Amino acid sequence: MPLSIAHLGPAGTYAEEAALTYAGWVAEETGQPAQLCPCPSIAQSLYATAGGKTEIAVVPVENSIEGGVTFTLDTLWQLAGLQIQQALVLPISHRLLSFAPDLQQIQTVYSHPQALSQCQNWLDRNLPQAQLIPMPSTTDVLTRLQADLSLGAIASRRAAQLYNLPILASEIQDYPDNCTRFWVLRQGQAEPTPSAQDTHTSLAFSLSANAPGALMQALGIFSDRQINLSRIESRPSKRALGDYVFFVDLEVGDRPDAVESALVELAAHTDVLKILGNYRLRQIAS
Amino acid sequence: MPLSIAHLGPAGTYAEEAALTYAGWVAEETGQPAQLCPCPSIAQSLYATAGGKTEIAVVPVENSIEGGVTFTLDTLWQLAGLQIQQALVLPISHRLLSFAPDLQQIQTVYSHPQALSQCQNWLDRNLPQAQLIPMPSTTDVLTRLQADLSLGAIASRRAAQLYNLPILASEIQDYPDNCTRFWVLRQGQAEPTPSAQDTHTSLAFSLSANAPGALMQALGIFSDRQINLSRIESRPSKRALGDYVFFVDLEVGDRPDAVESALVELAAHTDVLKILGNYRLRQIAS
Repeated sequence: MPLSIAHLGPAGTYAEEAALTYAGWVAEETGQPAQLCPCPSIAQSLYATAGGKTEIAVVPVENSIEGGVTFTLDTLWQLAGLQIQQALVLPISHRLLSFAPDLQQIQTVYSHPQALSQCQNWLDRNLPQAQLIPMPSTTDVLTRLQADLSLGAIASRRAAQLYNLPILASEIQDYPDNCTRFWVLRQGQAEPTPSAQDTHTSLAFSLSANAPGALMQALGIFSDRQINLSRIESRPSKRALGDYVFFVDLEVGDRPDAVESALVELAAHTDVLKILGNYRLRQIAS
Repeated sequence: MPLSIAHLGPAGTYAEEAALTYAGWVAEETGQPAQLCPCPSIAQSLYATAGGKTEIAVVPVENSIEGGVTFTLDTLWQLAGLQIQQALVLPISHRLLSFAPDLQQIQTVYSHPQALSQCQNWLDRNLPQAQLIPMPSTTDVLTRLQADLSLGAIASRRAAQLYNLPILASEIQDYPDNCTRFWVLRQGQAEPTPSAQDTHTSLAFSLSANAPGALMQALGIFSDRQINLSRIESRPSKRALGDYVFFVDLEVGDRPDAVESALVELAAHTDVLKILGNYRLRQIAS
């Protein structure tokens, strides 16, 4: 039976690239083949796995330029029954794809909102005449480019190859070290017990009071044990302005026991505490 | 001379409503009239004031459902020479505006991306057939509604009145306590010295190291003095994944001296520390 992997589609998205990379690792380690399942949205990738339609979901969590993928975080806070089993960091290098003979001919540029944002300065300088149209993914519009030379799209080199499209400009992202972190999730309830193989533990919590130092006390639990936070991000709880959910990634290092004891202590200082998973982070070479 | 106030336009946006409210307070206190200057983007509102074309910019900072307005935060981190002089919280209540005889006729809904997100569940339930098109503001498309009965737009009640448009559905936001905080900014360099009139001090900082507890140490400076943080938000520094800028709002209360001494101490623990302003926060009744 192939391993079914849900990801944001259609074919050629960065999420698909991350899913293929993960599928390669699984095939290498266990010999199991994979079947990719493109979904129309990030949320539907998560729902497909939570509902048992696929075994795995691969979703973007954070981009180095644009920050947290708020939709992924908000959905994971509300959704029960998923746990992270792996993280991977994918270098992001955008191309402008178009059949236009030159940049001046392009009137409209389509892409995912994050991709448009990541190339904002380049677009302002090089395509000031173009209208920018956000799409559900970087690849939704690619089959329409050939019919209209005034259209362009921002997508990956792999998308250009898949759809056989001309690359009009390369490396158009505004910042050189552009990369996106993806989480690989499966059904299950993560325990606050990382193993020696795990590099990270991710959690989310809300605080019961906005008392001075409530967040500080929570974070102090980790710093007391010399546990590093590789990320902290706040999201509105959607209850009231000033009421937050905090997403925190811990570096497990060689001290899973310290992380475990910290999580036990943290539970007493939080309103809701959700362990999202214990997992290994792998970088993908560019 | 009227007070010139830049805000996201065209007429009828929530930013304009916030700007009008502020103008009303100024007129009441000093008798000075105001001239509103609608801008095509939030960034251009900020640039207009930083560049001296207008005296004041009113920009959204945070919505209770969708979280920080990342574009405002990122622009303020990079831009020098602006300081917050007032904050105001505006209740947000969305309407669906359209000339369609009923919901079933609507094929396309336009609005600002934040407004579309804030009504996502309502749209999924009531307009599953409609395509959602993000626009630069809630009011950009309003003059086009009359010509096409299949179009709808999400905007305020005030926008419906201004453009004389039928309201097809009211209070369509997914969460009841939807409100947006705006900052009123003017030229100048804020000092780390709040006065007794100020309710809040806002700042942004980056940390020189990702050492365990670097953020904890910074936040400890405030909790040691029993200073409450009404908000903390992380944004990527755009330098590398895992490298953040933190936006923090402090409650000054009746202890401006404690805030001042905390800010002096904080400067020694941060890489870059930017005082965004000392100001009073006012709620607007719904």
